Amino acid sequence: VLAAFRELQAEGWIEAACNITRVSGTPPKDRLDRGRARPDRLGFELPTPPSPALDPALVSEPVPPGTLVFNTGQPDLRLLPIPLLARAYGRALRTRALLSYGDPKGEPRFRAALAGLLSGVRGLAAQADRLLVTGGSQMGLDLVARTLLRPGDRVAVENPGYAPAWVAFRAAGAVLVPVPVDEGGLCVDALAAELERGPLRAVYCTPQHQFPTTVTLEAARRQRLLELAEAGRFAVIEDDYDFEFPFDGSVMLPLAGMDTAGVVVYLGTLSKVLAPGLRLGFATGPAPFLDAVALHRRAADRQGGQVQERAVAELIEDGELQRHVRKMFRTYLARRDALAEALREHLDGVVDFRLPGGGMSLWVRVDPAVDLDAWTARALDRGVAFERACQFEFHGRPLQALRMGFASLQEDELREGVRRMKEAL
Amino acid sequence: VLAAFRELQAEGWIEAACNITRVSGTPPKDRLDRGRARPDRLGFELPTPPSPALDPALVSEPVPPGTLVFNTGQPDLRLLPIPLLARAYGRALRTRALLSYGDPKGEPRFRAALAGLLSGVRGLAAQADRLLVTGGSQMGLDLVARTLLRPGDRVAVENPGYAPAWVAFRAAGAVLVPVPVDEGGLCVDALAAELERGPLRAVYCTPQHQFPTTVTLEAARRQRLLELAEAGRFAVIEDDYDFEFPFDGSVMLPLAGMDTAGVVVYLGTLSKVLAPGLRLGFATGPAPFLDAVALHRRAADRQGGQVQERAVAELIEDGELQRHVRKMFRTYLARRDALAEALREHLDGVVDFRLPGGGMSLWVRVDPAVDLDAWTARALDRGVAFERACQFEFHGRPLQALRMGFASLQEDELREGVRRMKEAL
Repeated sequence: VLAAFRELQAEGWIEAACNITRVSGTPPKDRLDRGRARPDRLGFELPTPPSPALDPALVSEPVPPGTLVFNTGQPDLRLLPIPLLARAYGRALRTRALLSYGDPKGEPRFRAALAGLLSGVRGLAAQADRLLVTGGSQMGLDLVARTLLRPGDRVAVENPGYAPAWVAFRAAGAVLVPVPVDEGGLCVDALAAELERGPLRAVYCTPQHQFPTTVTLEAARRQRLLELAEAGRFAVIEDDYDFEFPFDGSVMLPLAGMDTAGVVVYLGTLSKVLAPGLRLGFATGPAPFLDAVALHRRAADRQGGQVQERAVAELIEDGELQRHVRKMFRTYLARRDALAEALREHLDGVVDFRLPGGGMSLWVRVDPAVDLDAWTARALDRGVAFERACQFEFHGRPLQALRMGFASLQEDELREGVRRMKEAL
Repeated sequence: VLAAFRELQAEGWIEAACNITRVSGTPPKDRLDRGRARPDRLGFELPTPPSPALDPALVSEPVPPGTLVFNTGQPDLRLLPIPLLARAYGRALRTRALLSYGDPKGEPRFRAALAGLLSGVRGLAAQADRLLVTGGSQMGLDLVARTLLRPGDRVAVENPGYAPAWVAFRAAGAVLVPVPVDEGGLCVDALAAELERGPLRAVYCTPQHQFPTTVTLEAARRQRLLELAEAGRFAVIEDDYDFEFPFDGSVMLPLAGMDTAGVVVYLGTLSKVLAPGLRLGFATGPAPFLDAVALHRRAADRQGGQVQERAVAELIEDGELQRHVRKMFRTYLARRDALAEALREHLDGVVDFRLPGGGMSLWVRVDPAVDLDAWTARALDRGVAFERACQFEFHGRPLQALRMGFASLQEDELREGVRRMKEAL
C-alpha cells in the first residue's frame, strides 16, 4: 500500500504533507496524455541536408524465395563447420572474463591467432598488438575514416568500386575523387594526375582482386602507388577482402607487406572465409595510427563481441579454419570453372569474361546490344538474380557488365542459373 | 614451373618478352626492402588536434588479481545462466540466415522480444519496427550523436555525469554544456537558464538512477524538461541503463513513455541484466529519427551480431531472462543492504549516503577531512578498489565522494572490502 502511495506521489497524482495525503491540485499532464504518443512525430530537427550522404546503393533489393542469386559477397554458408563453431562458442561463453569489458583492440587470443595466420599466409609481419579487430570490414572502413579524415579531405577511390566504402568516407566528410580502373587495376597515372590538382589524404583500393572487376593490381603500379604515397604523405587503405582464394597459384602479396614508409592501412575480413553474419574483420597498419583507431573504437562501441572472437580464435588455433579455407578453395575453384563453362555454353557471344585469378566472382561484360535493365527484370521473373555493374560506377553511369558471384551456389545451381539467364534474354 | 615464372614476372623479378625471359633490369625495390618495415613509422599525418577529444577517463586502470573491486558497471557474471545461453547460441548458429547479412536495425525476433519486454515492464509502447539494436549503450550514444549532431551544436549534459557519453558527443563535434545535478536530479532551472543563452540540440540525462549520484529525477522536473524540449525543439537523450532494479518499489516510468511531442530518444542496454561482454543495447524514439539512425548504423558497421541477438531473443521468449532479472533483483537488494550495513558499521562518520531507490551502486559522500587520493592508493595496496567521483565531474574538479558498485561482489566480499577500506583510512 505504502509503495502504491509513494508511486502515486512520485508521479504527481497525489500530494503528501504533514501526514495529510490528498489528490494533487496539478495532476501530471503527461500521464493524462499517455497513449496519445504519435510515433511518426519528430519534435526536433535532423541535420539538413541529411548528413552524411548515405548511399542507397547499400540497400540490396529482396528477391522472392527460390531465386538463384549470383551473390558476390557471400560464401556458401551450407558448408560451414557449424558443430565445431558451436562447441567453440560454448567454451567461450563459459569463460567469464569474455563476458566482461575487455580490450577495445579485440580479444587477445583472437588477435594472436590472426597475427599467426597473416604472417604465414599473407606475408604480413603483423604482431598481435598491431592488429585491431573490427565488426566486419565496414566497421574497419568507418573507423579508419573517423580516425584519418577531416571534412573536406580528398580521398581517391577506384571507379568502378566498392560503394559501401564511399559511404564511410563521406560520413567523415571526405570529398571523393574517382580514379579509373583498367586491366592492370587502379590507373596509377590517373592518380598521379589527381595529385597534381591537389593533395590527397588517402587512396582506397582493392589490389588483390579489384572490386568489382576482379583484376589484380600490377606489380609496377603497386610500387609506384607506394612511392606516390610516401612522397605525398597520404594513406593507402588496402581492402583485402578475399585474399584467401588465389586460384591461379600466383599470389601477389599485400601492399602492406611492402610498406616500409608507414603509409599502408590494411583491412581484412572473415566474412568470406567464415560468414558475414559473424561480423569479424581486422585492421593493421602503422602502430601510431592503430592506437588512434583503438581510441575511436572505444568511443564508437567500446569493444567487440569477445565471445565470438575467442570462439574463432580456437578454430584458428586448432587449424580448423585453415582446413575449412582449403576445402572452400577446391569447392570454389570448381564452381568458378562450372560457371565459366556454363556461360560459354549458353551465353556465348552475349557475354565475355576473363577467368579471375582468384576471389569469388566473375566480371562479365555484356554485348552492347543487350538491354541490361530489361534482361535483369526478366531474369528475376524466371528466378535468377545478378548484380548489374552500374551500381559500382561512381557517377551511376551505365556499365555494360555484371558481377556474378559463384561461391554460394552449387555447380548444378550455377548451371541452372545460367540456363535461366539465357531463357530471359 | 609456369606458375613460379608467372609469379616472378608479376612481382617484377623477371621480364618476359618475345619468348625470352630474363632477370629484370629494375628489380622490385619493395621486395629487396622487405623485412625492414618499421611499425612505429607513420608516413602520413593524423588530424591535429587529435579529433575528437577522446577522453582518457574511459580508460580504466588495471588492478592486481585478488583485488575486491566495487565495480559500478558490472553485474555478477558468476550468476549468469550460462548453460541456457550456450544452448541458445548453439541453436542460433545452426540457423543459416543468421550467419548472413540482415537488417541493420537488428535481428527481427530479438527486436520483437525486446519490444514485448519494454511494453510490459517499462510502459513503453515500443513496437519492434521502432527498436534499433545497438552494440551496447556506447554504440547507441555514438549513433545518436552521429545522426543528430553537427559540429558546434550545444548539448547539455549532467554534471557530475557519464563521461563515455561526453566522448561520443564530442566525437560528433558537439559543444558540451554541463548542468548541475542535485537531490532531485538534473537541475531543470539551470537548464532553462542555459537555454536563455542559446539553443540546445539535445540534453543527455539518466533520469531513473542518475549516473553517478543515483538520484531519481523528480516528477515535476520531468514534466518541465519535456515541455522545454518541445518548446525548444531539442532532443532528450534518455539513457536508462539500469531500469531493472527498482528496489524501493516506486517505479518511475521512463520519460520516453510520456513523450507526446516526439522529443525523447531512449537508450537501454542488456549489459546490466546479462553481461557487458555481449554488447547488446537498444534505442527507440520517433520513427523518422530511428530510420536515420539505421542508415548511420549501416554506414558504421552494416549490422550487429545476429547470432547472439537471436540467442538472447530465445531467453526472453522463454522467460529465462525475466527469471534471471527477478533472481538478480533479490540478490542485488540483499547486497545493497549488506554494503550499507557494512559502511555504517565500519565507516560511520567517515562516509554518508542515502540508500538508492534502485540500481547497482551507492553514491557515498566522504568526510572532507579525508584525503581521497591517499585513501584510494592505500586501499588499493590492501586489495580493494573503488571509483572516485572526480572522474565524473565535468571539469575534473575534486568531488568528495565515491561511487561504489555492489552488484558484482557477494555479501561477504562487500563486508571484507569495507573492512579493508577502514584499515586503509
